[in-house]
Amino acid sequence: MAVNKAKGTYDVLPSESFKWQALEHKIREITAQFNYLEIRTPIFEYSEVFHRQNELSDMVTKETYNFKDKGDRNLTLRPEGTAGVIRSFVENKLYVNDPLSKMYYIGPNFRYERPQKGRFRQFVQFGVEAVGSNDPMLDAEVIELAYHFIQSLGLKGVSVRINTLGDQASRKMFQDALKAHFEPVKHELCADCQNRIDKNPLRILDCKVDHRHEKVVNAPTPVMYLTEASKNYFDAVKRYLDQNDVKYVLADRLVRGLDYYEHTVFEIEAEIEGFGAQNVLGGGGRYQNLVKELGGPDLPGIGFAFGMERLLDALTQENIVFYEEQRLDVFGIAIDETHRSYLSQTLSLLRKEGYRATMDFNGKNFKTQLKNGLKTNARYLIIIGEDEYATNSVSLKDTTTQEQVKLSKDELINYLKEMRR
Amino acid sequence: MAVNKAKGTYDVLPSESFKWQALEHKIREITAQFNYLEIRTPIFEYSEVFHRQNELSDMVTKETYNFKDKGDRNLTLRPEGTAGVIRSFVENKLYVNDPLSKMYYIGPNFRYERPQKGRFRQFVQFGVEAVGSNDPMLDAEVIELAYHFIQSLGLKGVSVRINTLGDQASRKMFQDALKAHFEPVKHELCADCQNRIDKNPLRILDCKVDHRHEKVVNAPTPVMYLTEASKNYFDAVKRYLDQNDVKYVLADRLVRGLDYYEHTVFEIEAEIEGFGAQNVLGGGGRYQNLVKELGGPDLPGIGFAFGMERLLDALTQENIVFYEEQRLDVFGIAIDETHRSYLSQTLSLLRKEGYRATMDFNGKNFKTQLKNGLKTNARYLIIIGEDEYATNSVSLKDTTTQEQVKLSKDELINYLKEMRR
Repeated sequence: MAVNKAKGTYDVLPSESFKWQALEHKIREITAQFNYLEIRTPIFEYSEVFHRQNELSDMVTKETYNFKDKGDRNLTLRPEGTAGVIRSFVENKLYVNDPLSKMYYIGPNFRYERPQKGRFRQFVQFGVEAVGSNDPMLDAEVIELAYHFIQSLGLKGVSVRINTLGDQASRKMFQDALKAHFEPVKHELCADCQNRIDKNPLRILDCKVDHRHEKVVNAPTPVMYLTEASKNYFDAVKRYLDQNDVKYVLADRLVRGLDYYEHTVFEIEAEIEGFGAQNVLGGGGRYQNLVKELGGPDLPGIGFAFGMERLLDALTQENIVFYEEQRLDVFGIAIDETHRSYLSQTLSLLRKEGYRATMDFNGKNFKTQLKNGLKTNARYLIIIGEDEYATNSVSLKDTTTQEQVKLSKDELINYLKEMRR
Repeated sequence: MAVNKAKGTYDVLPSESFKWQALEHKIREITAQFNYLEIRTPIFEYSEVFHRQNELSDMVTKETYNFKDKGDRNLTLRPEGTAGVIRSFVENKLYVNDPLSKMYYIGPNFRYERPQKGRFRQFVQFGVEAVGSNDPMLDAEVIELAYHFIQSLGLKGVSVRINTLGDQASRKMFQDALKAHFEPVKHELCADCQNRIDKNPLRILDCKVDHRHEKVVNAPTPVMYLTEASKNYFDAVKRYLDQNDVKYVLADRLVRGLDYYEHTVFEIEAEIEGFGAQNVLGGGGRYQNLVKELGGPDLPGIGFAFGMERLLDALTQENIVFYEEQRLDVFGIAIDETHRSYLSQTLSLLRKEGYRATMDFNGKNFKTQLKNGLKTNARYLIIIGEDEYATNSVSLKDTTTQEQVKLSKDELINYLKEMRR
């Protein structure tokens, strides 16, 4: 019985996994530069973690994987990274020892949607969350981190689209304006948007159905309703970005649908062959209420997330080599079956010295072993014949220069050490 | 509303995650030496992937997390790593290009069990699978990898417990002998074991309820029923282990409950403070039918798995420092609020040069900034006062030697480069 992978999931095959490893390595390098530490939360949470607000509960029931444990509690495979991190932050009282927690995560999330190119039901996100400070300089740092990360991958035309929703007072005025703006044409909007007018009119601006409706195109923008304090906050963020050479454009219509954002929201884009106008790689924003909603103290946070599949796609499209080739040092070949044991022993010695060394395990003749050995792209071949066996030595062939030398086992280690330098 | 993590799960906090990273790094280093490449399979599979045999289906229905997708197909959170890897191996026809696939995985598995110390409902395993060869030298390589890995962590008293179940003919004879052995006392055994007599009597030997029953203690062992070929196979495995200095003991009662093992089975143990007799860290064995059962060609495999939580526990118990300290290079302090912007700019420059540099984001006074800075264990403090600001320079303080120097911004980069060497 042949069984396939579950619909909407994918395998990372042995021939591809080094790209994931390299991207993760890059993430760890850049986050370390900004002193963000990794946090790992469980794959599933009690559903309440994601089930906080009207808009979200819509997403939770329709788009998430839900099941019950045997104690009849509702569990949900996490659909995004932030809520679990904040749940953990609150439960473990990370705010007690440190006024500001700077965290990052890399891991799978799960959403039930129609699979399409580049969209999976299990998808991996890299994100950061900085919780505990209202300093606009922190907004700038988080944006700089995202910008610096994407630039460091070698992508071209990297730019930040940035906007502000202002504080709660600003946001309230903006929401009221949107309600008044859309109410007269309510019946012309899609069913979802008709619902959104009262619950969260900001989401109408992101609607995929109504985005060409005149009233959506001409909708008011948040900047019109900013309080003085909100304006000053945003000016400070922009000033810090300028000063640290982070390229950005103002995107006065950017609101990012999530309910909990206030003040700064942003997206990172790059010019990617074949991506066209769909060139946004990730984004985020500042949130003020999430920690409190999950039972914690009144602490603000700011974060972003990138989709790893999309990043890898972008890097592939742009032919960017962001990884070092992982090369086998030695592939061993025994001319005669009887010398395989001696060969194995030699390779074991090399591995104890830290070298990468392997051989054939399918009883192939010399020619096939040689072919397989060359296919591994090993730096060296070790060849054991009657003569090498009898003299406790090896023949070492450099696969680049084709040079071949005969060495005693002691000489072998020294020779490789010399060549490695 | 405070929400806790789901029962049986745990968080890896920012203060602890570097240990996981270090252990994973070690795994990648050792597997690379043996030329095993990573494979990543989805967190859930169609239930059939795990639902293959009577014994397993027992485990699947009782101990796994099951749910349905909206197409009404049964999904299961993977309870172990092997089946998903073999499903992927078959579906992606990895056997076409390479006679032998050597793979490893690191990832979470899920089992519904009563949580207890060191047992979680979401737990992480590192494992390898080598598929495509019947060579006893491959058994020895896989065991050597496991052994070398545990030794490289610095654990003491590392040893392999090894046994053979023989080929199918041997196994059949052994099973028949067990049936005959237990049948007369069937009614004295636990309900599960009464079931197992016909389905898989080997599992009686691992039973936690009946393990002191006289008939379990005195049960026949596989070695009594080995065919000549099976004996030769096992002898070869042992010979290769001897030759490559892998320490092992024969464990003639070791059967490892899984249905699919044939020939070599093994466990790795070490002497760990506080673990007592429960010192097994991982184990595995050779399987002949799994690939075929999952719809692939008739190819054998061999693999093992280690529990990461248990490994980390062991390393902690033994006070082994298996990680390098990840140290912040610079923590920046602005004596006056007005110089924070200049400070931020300086740190941004340092990060562009690859340094790890951060500052305070909570508007603290000098003394508190200093305290927080020292708490980060940064190698250097950068201090900006009126004088530094006016002269476009910084004061750099070495937190180890307490030496302090004043440097222009250009000098700063060169100074740090010099010190880094």
